[in-house]
Amino acid sequence: MHKHLLALSALLLAVPATASAQRYDARYGLEPGAHDEIAWDFLEGITTEVGPRLAGTEDEARGRAWAIEWLRERGFANVVDEPFMHNTWVRGEERARVTGRYAQPLVLTALGYSGATPAEGITAEVVHLASIDALRAVPDGSLAGKIAYIGHAMRATQDGSHYGYFGSPRRQGPGIAAQKGAAAILIRSIGTDTDRLPHTGATSWPDGTVPIPAAALSNPDADNLERMLERGETVSIDLVLTPQFLGMTPSGNVTGEIIGSDPSLPPVLLACHLDSWDTGTGAIDDASGCAIAAAAALRVAQEGQPLRTIRVLFAGAEETGLWGSAAYSAAHADEKIGVGLESDFGAGLIWRLEANFARSNPGLFQQLANAVTPYGVVPAPQILATGGADLNIVRDQGGPIIDLQQDGSRYFDLHHTANDTLDKVDPAELAQNVAVWTAVANVLANEPGDIAGPGIIAGE
Amino acid sequence: MHKHLLALSALLLAVPATASAQRYDARYGLEPGAHDEIAWDFLEGITTEVGPRLAGTEDEARGRAWAIEWLRERGFANVVDEPFMHNTWVRGEERARVTGRYAQPLVLTALGYSGATPAEGITAEVVHLASIDALRAVPDGSLAGKIAYIGHAMRATQDGSHYGYFGSPRRQGPGIAAQKGAAAILIRSIGTDTDRLPHTGATSWPDGTVPIPAAALSNPDADNLERMLERGETVSIDLVLTPQFLGMTPSGNVTGEIIGSDPSLPPVLLACHLDSWDTGTGAIDDASGCAIAAAAALRVAQEGQPLRTIRVLFAGAEETGLWGSAAYSAAHADEKIGVGLESDFGAGLIWRLEANFARSNPGLFQQLANAVTPYGVVPAPQILATGGADLNIVRDQGGPIIDLQQDGSRYFDLHHTANDTLDKVDPAELAQNVAVWTAVANVLANEPGDIAGPGIIAGE
Repeated sequence: MHKHLLALSALLLAVPATASAQRYDARYGLEPGAHDEIAWDFLEGITTEVGPRLAGTEDEARGRAWAIEWLRERGFANVVDEPFMHNTWVRGEERARVTGRYAQPLVLTALGYSGATPAEGITAEVVHLASIDALRAVPDGSLAGKIAYIGHAMRATQDGSHYGYFGSPRRQGPGIAAQKGAAAILIRSIGTDTDRLPHTGATSWPDGTVPIPAAALSNPDADNLERMLERGETVSIDLVLTPQFLGMTPSGNVTGEIIGSDPSLPPVLLACHLDSWDTGTGAIDDASGCAIAAAAALRVAQEGQPLRTIRVLFAGAEETGLWGSAAYSAAHADEKIGVGLESDFGAGLIWRLEANFARSNPGLFQQLANAVTPYGVVPAPQILATGGADLNIVRDQGGPIIDLQQDGSRYFDLHHTANDTLDKVDPAELAQNVAVWTAVANVLANEPGDIAGPGIIAGE
Repeated sequence: MHKHLLALSALLLAVPATASAQRYDARYGLEPGAHDEIAWDFLEGITTEVGPRLAGTEDEARGRAWAIEWLRERGFANVVDEPFMHNTWVRGEERARVTGRYAQPLVLTALGYSGATPAEGITAEVVHLASIDALRAVPDGSLAGKIAYIGHAMRATQDGSHYGYFGSPRRQGPGIAAQKGAAAILIRSIGTDTDRLPHTGATSWPDGTVPIPAAALSNPDADNLERMLERGETVSIDLVLTPQFLGMTPSGNVTGEIIGSDPSLPPVLLACHLDSWDTGTGAIDDASGCAIAAAAALRVAQEGQPLRTIRVLFAGAEETGLWGSAAYSAAHADEKIGVGLESDFGAGLIWRLEANFARSNPGLFQQLANAVTPYGVVPAPQILATGGADLNIVRDQGGPIIDLQQDGSRYFDLHHTANDTLDKVDPAELAQNVAVWTAVANVLANEPGDIAGPGIIAGE
């Protein structure tokens, strides 16, 4: 919060520098010492003063209250919290120990919406499955009383695109294992680090499936378990997981606006999500995104009132299944959005500009390209932007979307772990994000014509 | 164990590579693909099949039994387990949560020999002390009912020499805080990483001091707590730590020998420690050291029977206060050791040769220098080797000591954390260690004369 800026400026010197000096680099259009005070104030503030913001909990509500105060103090108009109801799940005890000859503890964490073991736990034999496809292939009932283990290791990619395939053991694996009769399922973390910090994340259960205990091992623990399994003897595990379903509890979407001079024009929507997993403080996922979106809106306003209204949407309950994004779309389906952008991939450098209107409105796409190339961002007119989790409303309307692709090479080292904390954000990279978003939002908010252009949006 | 070598060789391909290709480098005297099968077999085996080996526990005893079997199968003679008694401490529950306005959990771990809170915990205000010197300076009684917090952050150094000064908040801080009436003490982890994995380690209590609860915060949690404290309001913490003192339980020292052809010559002692903290699997601290020492002894024997006996000492209960090293010295005080070396600083590349007889026996020191320079190791005759924790017997005898300094630039990222696991060891760096130790042990074990030489050992 800005009242703490004096203390904050002293503190900044003490923040451990993950930034190396060469990141302040002309290649990214940044001056030496580049720093965005507004974005950093949001990010530092909410991670320090609120911390974790698990969907549907009091912690998430505190996050909304904090964000509302921040937006109002910074000068946003029409700041509101739109409530919706959410199926809330909270973590309990979680521990595992190999029994028998290789007896030792394994570090794991329950997946969101995991079922529970009895308080005293279960002991069961581990069945090693090399991939989600191997799990799909086992006969029904063959896992009865067993713990299914999927060990497929994810690789790092700059655009994060492997998350789709390699995330399937987490998203679909537990449901499939339950249908095949497994007592529980363990997966190797969907992550690219070698820290003993497992990666949580939501799983989903097919209709009629009773949730079974489901957890992720850290990568080093998955390695160790696989070494034991490779020795050829039966490996059993004592497993305790006691999460709870709390039923429907309130969550909410926070919005705020920089009012444009022509209220007849549909607004520019800058989206992110405010909830986080409970394990970290949600610095990269996704306080950074909200910091970038809000700072960009304010930076545009600093240059003069824009033509269009700029609206920020801090969605609630994204991590547990895009609940806020869906609720926002349902509540505002008839209010046309001019164009939507989302930041939900950390604070790595933006490297690529994508849109879904590059062919329908090439002139505007070229304007945007001219605005971002000074920051090391290259337009990719051949790639169709689809937006992220928090842009349901724009997708549902078939509207214009822009993706400002961030470098996610190391994002999945931290994603959904306890390590998602403030020190992992490079202030200079955050500043580059704000600079790019400001440049793009400035063009969009001052565009009088239809952003989709005279042609047809690709993908419609 | 060697019976698993077939499975092991297949597995090696799957081990996450922390090694980058350029580490297989002519600068270190290594061929491409350099790998020491003996050392890796020990290291992979004990971390996979035994795991953590906390001093005085059944886990440590399983580690000794495993090591004895390994040494005998590999052909060591006179393999024995020499028992001693040890004041044993085990971890309990450990959690902390900031109360009030900035409410959120903090990640911490109890220091070895920490006192306990009641099961329901304590709630107390935090007093921020910038350093161990600031703690020493506060008036007696001024910390009554408070939680002292020391935040001094350690820097990485290649030779690890900052561990002395920066480790003092852990070693002496709790005793000083207790004497000044504190209800508990928290310290910033003695570590150089930014992971949410706190660093444990033993503390010591002055005579007559009742242990208070004492724990280390991870570096990101220490950062976060300091940001809260900087805001100027009172910060209180709910703290639960329930470790237990088990009293005196058995530990032991494992030794084994490669028999030399001249039993009248004092042996070459290659030392390490077999116990580890309970948080990790003790891969770098110190299964690597035992793997290096044992592999070097076997590599010397492969070249023919040496003149002197080579003895390996796998000390017990090092982490909790060098109990095994002291017991070994007391039991064998009158049996002269020819020369002692220790490996207890991970498996980083060896970069410097030091001895305490460079001036008393310059000819032998030159021979050793000639043996190690091909591996990128440079002699430092001006530095006086003092040996490490497991060489009490040689220091007590005033005997010859060699230090083969390893690169510890990143050692304190992992030291005493859950992250001390097999994947953190680079097989090529481990192989360089074995190559250097083999070269040095070969010279020493075939030296007929007094290793101290005709002169006086420096420091005597």
